[in-house]
Amino acid sequence: MRALVLDQDWRFVEDYPVPDPPSGEARIRVRVAGICNTDLELARGYLHFCGVAGHEFVGVVEYAPGAEAWEGRRVVGDINAACGVCTTCRAGRPTHCPHRTTLGMDGRDGAFADYLTLPVRNLYAVPDALPDEVAVFTEPLAAACEILEQVHVRPTDRVIVLGDGKLGLLCAQVLALTGCDLTVIGRHADKLDILARLGIVALHTPRGVMVEAAEIGGMADVVVEATGHPDGFAMARQLLRPRGTLVLKSTYHGAVKADFSRAVVDEIQLVGSRCGPFAPALRLLERGLVNVRPLIQANYPFAEILTALHRAELPGALKVLVTM
Amino acid sequence: MRALVLDQDWRFVEDYPVPDPPSGEARIRVRVAGICNTDLELARGYLHFCGVAGHEFVGVVEYAPGAEAWEGRRVVGDINAACGVCTTCRAGRPTHCPHRTTLGMDGRDGAFADYLTLPVRNLYAVPDALPDEVAVFTEPLAAACEILEQVHVRPTDRVIVLGDGKLGLLCAQVLALTGCDLTVIGRHADKLDILARLGIVALHTPRGVMVEAAEIGGMADVVVEATGHPDGFAMARQLLRPRGTLVLKSTYHGAVKADFSRAVVDEIQLVGSRCGPFAPALRLLERGLVNVRPLIQANYPFAEILTALHRAELPGALKVLVTM
Repeated sequence: MRALVLDQDWRFVEDYPVPDPPSGEARIRVRVAGICNTDLELARGYLHFCGVAGHEFVGVVEYAPGAEAWEGRRVVGDINAACGVCTTCRAGRPTHCPHRTTLGMDGRDGAFADYLTLPVRNLYAVPDALPDEVAVFTEPLAAACEILEQVHVRPTDRVIVLGDGKLGLLCAQVLALTGCDLTVIGRHADKLDILARLGIVALHTPRGVMVEAAEIGGMADVVVEATGHPDGFAMARQLLRPRGTLVLKSTYHGAVKADFSRAVVDEIQLVGSRCGPFAPALRLLERGLVNVRPLIQANYPFAEILTALHRAELPGALKVLVTM
Repeated sequence: MRALVLDQDWRFVEDYPVPDPPSGEARIRVRVAGICNTDLELARGYLHFCGVAGHEFVGVVEYAPGAEAWEGRRVVGDINAACGVCTTCRAGRPTHCPHRTTLGMDGRDGAFADYLTLPVRNLYAVPDALPDEVAVFTEPLAAACEILEQVHVRPTDRVIVLGDGKLGLLCAQVLALTGCDLTVIGRHADKLDILARLGIVALHTPRGVMVEAAEIGGMADVVVEATGHPDGFAMARQLLRPRGTLVLKSTYHGAVKADFSRAVVDEIQLVGSRCGPFAPALRLLERGLVNVRPLIQANYPFAEILTALHRAELPGALKVLVTM
């Protein structure tokens, strides 16, 4: 089969072996895949991954031994494949299973190929009404939903999202549904325009300019740091009220210097937030409550995935898709 | 009146003016005061405070214009004097009032003197059964109770307290009351013995030695970092399970380098924790559920407070009290 293999650099191959699903897993024919910033980071050495990358996909189950009812169904899938039997799994935290593999990221070939395999229990049927290029956003939208899974955001809360990247725009749309008083701060006028058209207040700030709380009507109860940069933390901290909650969504290489004594005095909460629940993400898409279409930058045929990756790497790029 | 004034260095004066309570405040005659590590840090320049230090006290209300019912009562008092009218106060977070003064720490003379003043609404009557040298622990014990005010510690949780200082020992005693599976890790065999006598598991570890989770039966659901040192964070992080809660209790000068990307991947929560509620602390003392007597290192007459401060500065010192 065709596959984009990462091995220090990207390599497009035509004769990668079609995977055989081990017990409990299904082989899925990929229809559409999305390029995530994490894929670009993998190529820079993040997680030292070698193999087929890609973790955002929509596909059709082709072969599911022992779970034939899934065959022929269009699905998306949770990317964390847990062992299911360890203490962490049995405590209800399979996405943190220490033995997990992660699709296209850690110990498991991913979606930039004609086929992938995933455990059947990771699969979610896609409603017929959702086209592939919408359903492919389920995984990143689930990551945005994870914020509400972890933090009780109240309708009366003042919330700030820092960062207008793909994840920032999804987080903003999900948070807006709570009725909270929401402001998004970002560096790209065109992306903030997408939010403005959805009725979400957006503040355009050039890189390196620190926004003061007074400029935006006061400090926030909740700040979501989704800039993808280490310097996002200082601004997030400055905009957060005492006893407020700072949600960390960015992953990047390197450490941040933080004044924890100040965090003690202000009694703030920091919440690391990663992958989220697929079922609510699919419901939001089906109900039309999150609009992902303006987030699509381009859609390339899979044969042109190297071009697609270059497009995704351009500054300010939104979601780049590939269709098999 | 007599007062210990901090003005770059400590200065014992005999003729400090007796404070007149402004409207809404009471003048309190101090009976016993406790020396906190924060007092020692103030002398090193923390908060740039000049004035009478001291914030742990038991006293008797001498003069409370407009609130005469308080006169003659033995009291302890919340050290944060809030404005009561700003948005933060009205939102129910007076200890974070941006206009607050703090007893013996920020904008308000403290307890190392014959008299102090505090707002009447900050006062709590001390039950007759509690001797002064027990009631004087109300303030630090309230800070330990703050952990349970912020974090839901379950009886089935595995909890680790890092640090066997005065605050660590109080946190451990409060957490033990939840029925949780508790281990305290500290550097002082004599302090850990106090816990062992209370039936609390304690692990003695020399400074600089990193404890592995496997050594203590696995990772913890909740870790309380109360070492008072920046290097406590790395060990706390290592002992915390994914999606666990790390309570920050230490304040010290300087920043910590933290890997926030790892915090995102593991979805941990960091909770800064400072001053706490006085009423439950008094109830725990009255019910005899927290034993503070083994925590008393020494009790000096106020005239010898400079000696008392030197005693409190010795490595491994427990609570040093002064009696007026």
